[in-house]
Amino acid sequence: MQQRNATAAVVGAGDYIGGEIAKKFASEGFTVFIGRRQGEKLAPLVKEIEVAGGKVFGRALDARKEEDIVSFLGAADQHAPLEVCVFNIGANVNFPILETTERVFRKVWEMACYSGFLAGREAARLMLPRGKGHIFFTGATASLRGGHGYAAFASAKFGLRAVAQSMARELGPKNIHVAHLVIDSGVDTEWVRQRIVQNEGAQALANLDPDRLMRPAAVANAYWQLYQQPRDAWTFEQEIRPFGEKW
Amino acid sequence: MQQRNATAAVVGAGDYIGGEIAKKFASEGFTVFIGRRQGEKLAPLVKEIEVAGGKVFGRALDARKEEDIVSFLGAADQHAPLEVCVFNIGANVNFPILETTERVFRKVWEMACYSGFLAGREAARLMLPRGKGHIFFTGATASLRGGHGYAAFASAKFGLRAVAQSMARELGPKNIHVAHLVIDSGVDTEWVRQRIVQNEGAQALANLDPDRLMRPAAVANAYWQLYQQPRDAWTFEQEIRPFGEKW
Amino acid sequence: MQQRNATAAVVGAGDYIGGEIAKKFASEGFTVFIGRRQGEKLAPLVKEIEVAGGKVFGRALDARKEEDIVSFLGAADQHAPLEVCVFNIGANVNFPILETTERVFRKVWEMACYSGFLAGREAARLMLPRGKGHIFFTGATASLRGGHGYAAFASAKFGLRAVAQSMARELGPKNIHVAHLVIDSGVDTEWVRQRIVQNEGAQALANLDPDRLMRPAAVANAYWQLYQQPRDAWTFEQEIRPFGEKW
Amino acid sequence: MQQRNATAAVVGAGDYIGGEIAKKFASEGFTVFIGRRQGEKLAPLVKEIEVAGGKVFGRALDARKEEDIVSFLGAADQHAPLEVCVFNIGANVNFPILETTERVFRKVWEMACYSGFLAGREAARLMLPRGKGHIFFTGATASLRGGHGYAAFASAKFGLRAVAQSMARELGPKNIHVAHLVIDSGVDTEWVRQRIVQNEGAQALANLDPDRLMRPAAVANAYWQLYQQPRDAWTFEQEIRPFGEKW
Repeated sequence: MQQRNATAAVVGAGDYIGGEIAKKFASEGFTVFIGRRQGEKLAPLVKEIEVAGGKVFGRALDARKEEDIVSFLGAADQHAPLEVCVFNIGANVNFPILETTERVFRKVWEMACYSGFLAGREAARLMLPRGKGHIFFTGATASLRGGHGYAAFASAKFGLRAVAQSMARELGPKNIHVAHLVIDSGVDTEWVRQRIVQNEGAQALANLDPDRLMRPAAVANAYWQLYQQPRDAWTFEQEIRPFGEKW
Repeated sequence: MQQRNATAAVVGAGDYIGGEIAKKFASEGFTVFIGRRQGEKLAPLVKEIEVAGGKVFGRALDARKEEDIVSFLGAADQHAPLEVCVFNIGANVNFPILETTERVFRKVWEMACYSGFLAGREAARLMLPRGKGHIFFTGATASLRGGHGYAAFASAKFGLRAVAQSMARELGPKNIHVAHLVIDSGVDTEWVRQRIVQNEGAQALANLDPDRLMRPAAVANAYWQLYQQPRDAWTFEQEIRPFGEKW
Repeated sequence: MQQRNATAAVVGAGDYIGGEIAKKFASEGFTVFIGRRQGEKLAPLVKEIEVAGGKVFGRALDARKEEDIVSFLGAADQHAPLEVCVFNIGANVNFPILETTERVFRKVWEMACYSGFLAGREAARLMLPRGKGHIFFTGATASLRGGHGYAAFASAKFGLRAVAQSMARELGPKNIHVAHLVIDSGVDTEWVRQRIVQNEGAQALANLDPDRLMRPAAVANAYWQLYQQPRDAWTFEQEIRPFGEKW
Repeated sequence: MQQRNATAAVVGAGDYIGGEIAKKFASEGFTVFIGRRQGEKLAPLVKEIEVAGGKVFGRALDARKEEDIVSFLGAADQHAPLEVCVFNIGANVNFPILETTERVFRKVWEMACYSGFLAGREAARLMLPRGKGHIFFTGATASLRGGHGYAAFASAKFGLRAVAQSMARELGPKNIHVAHLVIDSGVDTEWVRQRIVQNEGAQALANLDPDRLMRPAAVANAYWQLYQQPRDAWTFEQEIRPFGEKW
């Protein structure tokens, strides 16, 4: 692996999607900066990347705080030019409308939309002087469709999509590639597996069709494809789902 | 005019669209409750409705405060069953992404999305026990499309649309009609006229094509049509624009 | 009822939706011209309209034939200015892709898309010199969404929607109102009732929730609302569905 | 280059997009079958592929004829299993609605929609027994948006998209990847360059921004990315455009 003089920042580097994105870009020679709220949980990911020969810096990051975002992305950019920023924080909750408290509504928005705005804006601020960069946002089914119980989550995801689309229209002509990747399925995480057990029983998990859930690594792969697009054929939006998904 | 035993609440009863909606529903026999931040500005509207023989209550209302919304809609419902609630607060601003401060982003969201969630939820809470009601949200071009400079505004409007769509899917089967009216044009307001002068010069206003801007009364009329729909043919979403509008 | 000096043409005046549209516009004073393939089946509808005091002309009409459309709409316009044209021909079929013959694919397109293009274009030709008119197209869920077994039907309905949208953008500024009404539910027809019996058994029909299916008259009512819109607030597209519909 | 035991068929292998797709898949080891109406025009492409070490068969193909499609794809599949089928026939015309003849409307549909249905269905027929394959359709801005003068073209492209979406929903679970690639820009072809000269003068071409038009090879690259997606993360639809494109 040849090391690049470039950083890739992952805002929301959890155990699954964000972690795989970090590993992928690290394996391609980027120095990756990874942030999540509880920074101490990053240790295994940092170690895994380093063992594989990658370069990585883990940081505790509350992405809802402007100063945290500024300093996280600033640190990346000081290390080497920030070339890629992936915003990957979700907040999937489901409550009937009457049980959706104002606190939940606000918190979900702060996590899934407002912090995405902050990350996107600050990444753009660092990239624009060099006229080059990639800013990617992770979307979901709820980015395109509201549903029973999803007032809070869909509202935040719709809002994030609007940020991404507005930035894409403004920044594309300045050679900043902004994209919004819509994950239209369950992803293979502990949380999703628990929900399957809850809804369908323990056997459902034992008999799980191997392609029913999307591997987090497949999401990372999709981001890597977006990164590789030549600038005369950029995608703003595409959805991905497992072949067996009903839609 | 025959008075109904029903109230219609207008959250965001400004001088134009909200005011016309209030007048229309008052003229159809509803007792209307109208709220806006600076309650003292409601006096002319209250007077106009009363002179026309309508019944109206004006209230100072900061729709971003849960307790304000609860007490505003509660007061309406105590007067007579709340049958219609129209959320009509906008916050149209345009800033390049780098100049979109976190304060602007948050404030636009609080005005145009969060307060809509509060109004919709509290209206639903009052209507559900009776299994009857109409909750309408005012959308805009930016509800469907992000654009250069519109990260804050489109994000809030997308988010409001997601609230409306989620509520429609949950509450429709409970006989609550939730609709989202997309105004895809300029509306004839002082602010829009000033922008035309700014962008095109003073003559542009003098020579204004009479059908270029939408009359606020036409928006009120669209809401009245939505209200009249039989429940086997409800619309969730429609857009309106002047015949000459380019789209 | 006061008779107007205006005609309304219904292309596809079957026993349900088209028939109700004809009755509605006749009851509002239009002379209605109604056409369907088997003209002899129009007799009961003609009689019903006449008994109610309306004026009506029924014609056998193969809407897939250009000369038929030209002469049908021309006859209406010669009687009195053609003010409204509603295209209402569907062709709902479902076949797995491998069983969708080229004959089916072509025929469905000719009925549901090509004939709509002919009707819309010829209506526009008659209306444009007077700078006034309304051209309405009946859409369906399949206008917006392809699905398993719907390659032929959705393809035709998508295509019709594109015709309507292109015409709306071109003709709106010329004061011709073009609209596309999306019926997102089953309509209460004999055919739909039979399908319910097939899929759910005879009891399903006996116990049918009264608001599960849309009354054809409700569709006619939606068209009447579209007709009444002032020209500074025209809708191009809206969907209608019964309150209990899952979507 | 290692030769695969697999064929890729390009229906509509013109001088630009289709030709580049053929070259790309040939360079990746597929034996490519290329078809276009005037088969004699395929000679330079065949030669270019062969010189580069690829395997290719060129055929005259009227894709509007069922028997032609059946025999073209059948020949590919007899040579080696048909693994990829790309439908790439466009028919971009612009006429005001009144000047859109029924002949134009029908012909554009036959070229851009009906023949796509035939190609997709026959490819599926060959792929389903093996439970494996990729069927890709080339879309355009007009696939998603009707416009002034585009009744014929948009209607055909909308219709093609419905075919693709219906097939994707039916065939995905059977491990056939169906995708619809939306090219939202001009592509660098002789025809587009002539239109630029017509609309903007000869200097416009001389001063053409190098990234204003999309290279046909970039489209081929996008198809290659789609082909490489793992089956737990398939995209049905994505759009591509040059970074400077206004949208």
